[in-house]
Amino acid sequence: MALRIIITGGTFDKQYDAIRGQLTFKDSHLPEIIEQVRSTLPVELEINQLVDSLDMQDENRQRVLAACQRAPEEYIVITHGTDTMSETAAVLGQAFAAGDAALAGKHIVLTGAMVPYSVSGSDALFNLGGAFLAAQLTAPGVYIVMNGRCRPWDRVRKNRELGVFEEPTG
Amino acid sequence: MALRIIITGGTFDKQYDAIRGQLTFKDSHLPEIIEQVRSTLPVELEINQLVDSLDMQDENRQRVLAACQRAPEEYIVITHGTDTMSETAAVLGQAFAAGDAALAGKHIVLTGAMVPYSVSGSDALFNLGGAFLAAQLTAPGVYIVMNGRCRPWDRVRKNRELGVFEEPTG
Amino acid sequence: MALRIIITGGTFDKQYDAIRGQLTFKDSHLPEIIEQVRSTLPVELEINQLVDSLDMQDENRQRVLAACQRAPEEYIVITHGTDTMSETAAVLGQAFAAGDAALAGKHIVLTGAMVPYSVSGSDALFNLGGAFLAAQLTAPGVYIVMNGRCRPWDRVRKNRELGVFEEPTG
Amino acid sequence: MALRIIITGGTFDKQYDAIRGQLTFKDSHLPEIIEQVRSTLPVELEINQLVDSLDMQDENRQRVLAACQRAPEEYIVITHGTDTMSETAAVLGQAFAAGDAALAGKHIVLTGAMVPYSVSGSDALFNLGGAFLAAQLTAPGVYIVMNGRCRPWDRVRKNRELGVFEEPTG
Repeated sequence: MALRIIITGGTFDKQYDAIRGQLTFKDSHLPEIIEQVRSTLPVELEINQLVDSLDMQDENRQRVLAACQRAPEEYIVITHGTDTMSETAAVLGQAFAAGDAALAGKHIVLTGAMVPYSVSGSDALFNLGGAFLAAQLTAPGVYIVMNGRCRPWDRVRKNRELGVFEEPTG
Repeated sequence: MALRIIITGGTFDKQYDAIRGQLTFKDSHLPEIIEQVRSTLPVELEINQLVDSLDMQDENRQRVLAACQRAPEEYIVITHGTDTMSETAAVLGQAFAAGDAALAGKHIVLTGAMVPYSVSGSDALFNLGGAFLAAQLTAPGVYIVMNGRCRPWDRVRKNRELGVFEEPTG
Repeated sequence: MALRIIITGGTFDKQYDAIRGQLTFKDSHLPEIIEQVRSTLPVELEINQLVDSLDMQDENRQRVLAACQRAPEEYIVITHGTDTMSETAAVLGQAFAAGDAALAGKHIVLTGAMVPYSVSGSDALFNLGGAFLAAQLTAPGVYIVMNGRCRPWDRVRKNRELGVFEEPTG
Repeated sequence: MALRIIITGGTFDKQYDAIRGQLTFKDSHLPEIIEQVRSTLPVELEINQLVDSLDMQDENRQRVLAACQRAPEEYIVITHGTDTMSETAAVLGQAFAAGDAALAGKHIVLTGAMVPYSVSGSDALFNLGGAFLAAQLTAPGVYIVMNGRCRPWDRVRKNRELGVFEEPTG
């Protein structure tokens, strides 16, 4: 029993570049985070890509899907930018729903952060802790964990004005 | 649908007293944490007590039980010191198992921290996020969420040498 | 004997806007910082403006000069963006050198940060502490404190490739 | 021109031991702090001892004196527990006043913290920044920098009720 974290970038992993004076990607904080949180569940880390999710193309999402298919672990957490988290979740969710044999029996949870881990007041660790537990406690499938809640991939989208994830109405 | 956090103290909420030069309890960080984590699940906070769990007597655990019985919410997270978390979980779990009507249908999760929220490198937010999701995704009952895992109250205890929670063997 | 902090914005005071996903100005962290650092020197805070120093026009620098002239305190620390800190220092330094009566006897120190106070790994508090002491220990005049050093306004400029302040050569 | 930091422990460098549940000494944070603060003044670090200043005996203070005598640098900053910082300053100050040839021309500043560097809300970086600048801007001698102020060793002591350093009255 083990959990794989597939890292794709997003706000979660942004850090401050003092020379350029802006938040960018350099490497992932997940290795240090995994030590910090004292997980007794074995964790594999995989840097799949380090991008802003607004810059993700279809090719980027296919790369995430391929990583999920390849993963030998039953539990998968994907750190992802919030802006297009639903789109990537849909790519994975549709493959799962179509009976993709390489996804069968896997518990896949996408999560991210509204404030980077490296900035004070971040929600990154809270969301990651939720994603860990949701991966282990839900039925196989594809989910998003944000704002203290877990929802199936096809019943959640980001409200960009409020900066929270919610169930689409209507 | 709402979640109550019953605060009892423990390492989670310790803060540094600069005059006395040691970690003590003054008040809880949970109000600021709840803002920080952007929960869309309504959250009620209740400071039940602020004690080191090594100092907890049976009376203290009864006070936690009473708070769970009184709570109108279906989901309950209890922040607790790690040293006697299993003992308090047992008090709640035995009441639940005995069919206590005031606990029926409630999802009760105890969690805590090995490093205080106010100290760098803390596991508090990760554990809290896990507890939020475990409360919502488990069957009614009493659980402990620590180290990225959720276990029923009667199948977990702290290994004090290693500083992690594990399943008792034998 | 007292010290006035004239706040102008800059990297020092940038904070993360979770909705817009970028670092912006909302208000200053100086009030909370002053509590944190336990100064026994009386401190007056004045938010003069909250701008990126790359956006500063001559009018902005005149407003800083006016604040220094108006200040009843002998010791003045100005928090400022690093990119044009030297230019503002020159406006103040030339006025001082020209014998501006309203600046006579004042110890004016500009400082800032390469990493915002709200981002982990910030140099803001270190620089501020240096500026406090430099204001009290130098002769009246205009100085820049960055990178653990104090230099007169006309013998320092930012090296943008290295992200440090240095003495101009030649 | 260079600065030596002589590390002796104290609150400044305390860190949380998750197994024992208390603040202790493991190693010093100064190496990472020196990177963080972007000093362009060359800095040498020396771990002289890692003790609580309440546990310091005369032998411990002699070891600090010996380090100052040995140091080839002109500027010396000593990180030290606050409770007996004045006592160690007196040992150094009396040697300096007695004309100790190995101390002649040296600028020696003791500093520390009321809240550890590893705890949120710490004054450690602010004090260290002040000590850096005070070492460079004062006349040769022995000083204490705390609370945003620099005072000669024989005109300052800690007020333990208030947790600040002040000038002795009378």
